Amino acid sequence: MNTSESAKSVTVEGWIHRRRQLASVTFVVVRDRSGLGQVVVTDPIVREQISELPEETVVRVTGSVAENTKAPGGVEIVDPTISVLGAPAQLQPVELWRPKLSATLPTVLDHAAITWRHPTRQAVWKIAAASMTGFRRHLDSIGFTEVATPKIVDQSTESGANVFTLDYFGKDAYLAQSPQLYKQILTGVFERVYEVGPVFRAEPHDTARHLAEYTSLDAEFGFINDHHDVLALLRGTLAAMIDTIRHTAGDAAATAGIDLPVVPEQIPVLHFSEALDLVGASPHEPDLAPEHERLLGKWAKTQFDSDFLAVEGYPAGKRPFYTHPQPDDPRWTNSFDLLFRGLELVTGGQRLHNHADYIAALAARSEDPAAYAPYLEAMGSGMPPHGGFAIGLERWVSRLLEADNIRYATLFPRDIHRIRP
Amino acid sequence: MNTSESAKSVTVEGWIHRRRQLASVTFVVVRDRSGLGQVVVTDPIVREQISELPEETVVRVTGSVAENTKAPGGVEIVDPTISVLGAPAQLQPVELWRPKLSATLPTVLDHAAITWRHPTRQAVWKIAAASMTGFRRHLDSIGFTEVATPKIVDQSTESGANVFTLDYFGKDAYLAQSPQLYKQILTGVFERVYEVGPVFRAEPHDTARHLAEYTSLDAEFGFINDHHDVLALLRGTLAAMIDTIRHTAGDAAATAGIDLPVVPEQIPVLHFSEALDLVGASPHEPDLAPEHERLLGKWAKTQFDSDFLAVEGYPAGKRPFYTHPQPDDPRWTNSFDLLFRGLELVTGGQRLHNHADYIAALAARSEDPAAYAPYLEAMGSGMPPHGGFAIGLERWVSRLLEADNIRYATLFPRDIHRIRP
Repeated sequence: MNTSESAKSVTVEGWIHRRRQLASVTFVVVRDRSGLGQVVVTDPIVREQISELPEETVVRVTGSVAENTKAPGGVEIVDPTISVLGAPAQLQPVELWRPKLSATLPTVLDHAAITWRHPTRQAVWKIAAASMTGFRRHLDSIGFTEVATPKIVDQSTESGANVFTLDYFGKDAYLAQSPQLYKQILTGVFERVYEVGPVFRAEPHDTARHLAEYTSLDAEFGFINDHHDVLALLRGTLAAMIDTIRHTAGDAAATAGIDLPVVPEQIPVLHFSEALDLVGASPHEPDLAPEHERLLGKWAKTQFDSDFLAVEGYPAGKRPFYTHPQPDDPRWTNSFDLLFRGLELVTGGQRLHNHADYIAALAARSEDPAAYAPYLEAMGSGMPPHGGFAIGLERWVSRLLEADNIRYATLFPRDIHRIRP
Repeated sequence: MNTSESAKSVTVEGWIHRRRQLASVTFVVVRDRSGLGQVVVTDPIVREQISELPEETVVRVTGSVAENTKAPGGVEIVDPTISVLGAPAQLQPVELWRPKLSATLPTVLDHAAITWRHPTRQAVWKIAAASMTGFRRHLDSIGFTEVATPKIVDQSTESGANVFTLDYFGKDAYLAQSPQLYKQILTGVFERVYEVGPVFRAEPHDTARHLAEYTSLDAEFGFINDHHDVLALLRGTLAAMIDTIRHTAGDAAATAGIDLPVVPEQIPVLHFSEALDLVGASPHEPDLAPEHERLLGKWAKTQFDSDFLAVEGYPAGKRPFYTHPQPDDPRWTNSFDLLFRGLELVTGGQRLHNHADYIAALAARSEDPAAYAPYLEAMGSGMPPHGGFAIGLERWVSRLLEADNIRYATLFPRDIHRIRP
């Protein structure tokens, strides 16, 4: 509990999480942003008052602190006076006082404003918040500049598929699927940039892994040698995110039952062609299937005791036009996927940085350079070799949780069937 | 310059900002994310090489460090070797090497990817980035939780006006005009929340003060007494933002010629009715005109030597339905505008927190409660007295700059006429 103390008394403000009314004493568990605390009431008048205050009543409790080794935190409040700050007007859709939130996913989501109050749910989001903080602090500490790029754009980032269309003052516009082109442009300005913000995908499939709107942790930086520098940046960033969870949300990680991974100093790297070979797939497969990723995850755990494995060199045909080819063999690319416990977590890589290479790459895909005019102007104005990555916040947290649905790690998820709350 | 040094040599990577070729020596100014540095070339072969490298060529320079009190930073690089990392493919639309960027606003915006490279432009955004960092760090330090609320919503936040409409899997949806309703809901979960993210207004007017998309710094917290607690939080937050600019972007503030304001320990507060009286307006005016705000700004400066003035008590009819009335006179509200140097910077206040008050407020405006069902469920589940504020990032920075157009403080602005770059 957060308490404000004077010489004689202590005050705590929060929610009545649970009342237990025994023969001669009433125990009240009060919940505030720091956790749960116990209030012990023996005064008959106050006990009578509490009997009329349902769970989730918002209260201010003033009393004396007493040690009690059995109470949460080792202390409890005794001889309280209680004033009501906010009263519930209806029954709750779930019983928040139960140690485990027993509700189906639709109930959890339909009543998100209430279900997030449960301590196990709060813990999930606190891990997400700590992840964002760790991401930013690490990048701030090594000379990155935070940017804010537009979410309303005049073209789709990577392809015309799965993009939301908008009425923009009578013309069509689109919601950005990623800050990709803008963050690249901005390496020409600030060298090292990051952005934490919403991205939008009109995913037509209702799966446990996809959202129509999610939070993307994007980083991009210049003066790299190749994608291995990007992987090294990603490694340091993930380690910092995990450290920040440990230090600022350690209680939340414990409540959520999360086993925080260790990021090896060197993340093991396997070439895409080796990966296909290892899982017994045809050397002509253009991508890794989920089953392949699972096998590779197990292999990395056995071989390197690592929860992380980078697969580099994905075939050029399966990567966006701005992907840098592998210099010694342009069938492959200087890009990678990072697998975490056998599931894809991050995509990253080196990008093209020469204007002529962009013109050739767009021509090879029959794309109109005019659609990319401002981007190509930047690429024609002296760009450093650069690359970057994007981490999906909700995907990251749901995999830490080993949740079976990404929606558990999203405050108010959006999908083909859901637009409220 | 950022340099990496070995015993014998130093390496810097950046852009050729300017070449000056004299009879027997060539000076090259190299720009990197830390600023400008001078390279002195006397070797005829290297001088010949440089003569063919236009401004904005991306280079790696390796040489020896020599002291020179006339050079930027007191040192320069001598006897360099230079390798090209990226070559411009075209002439630049502006001369970035000139101390002052001489270009009209449309040129600055049309070629934003290039014009942001100018040191005076970079400085502007570094002040914005430092402002975001200061906002978050302050709120993190006092127990706030960062949240990420959806930008695709099924209703407009405050009214049907100026909202962008979206095709959401075949149905209409809207872009969030603010995270208002979500941040309120979340005070019921985390007590104290903030969000830094994009908000969207379909502003039909082309003014110097408005954008169709901007970055909103939102804070909301529970267990307040009234709007004065909100103003106190805002005061501390602004002071932290200014401190962070001073400490992490002091050079940028100097480059941009910004006079950082001092936030008084107590921001002076004037009631709306007193403000009307002071400026000689009719007591029945429903709002303050820009001219009134300017007069009040001058008055606060003269009377209190303060760049800031809070006007509280705005008439209920001009505030959103969730605004808490002034308890002793419901014609007025527990809300405020913060004026900065005579211009409105922030709106904040206390919100309703009782379910019955919401039902009454919506009925009084003939709004359908069903449209707000999830929000009303939260308000009916035990909400603390709460309030908050929102700072427009670009507005804040443009007023620090005393810029005549908010677009100067926006990376890639969006308005009725502009959707690219």
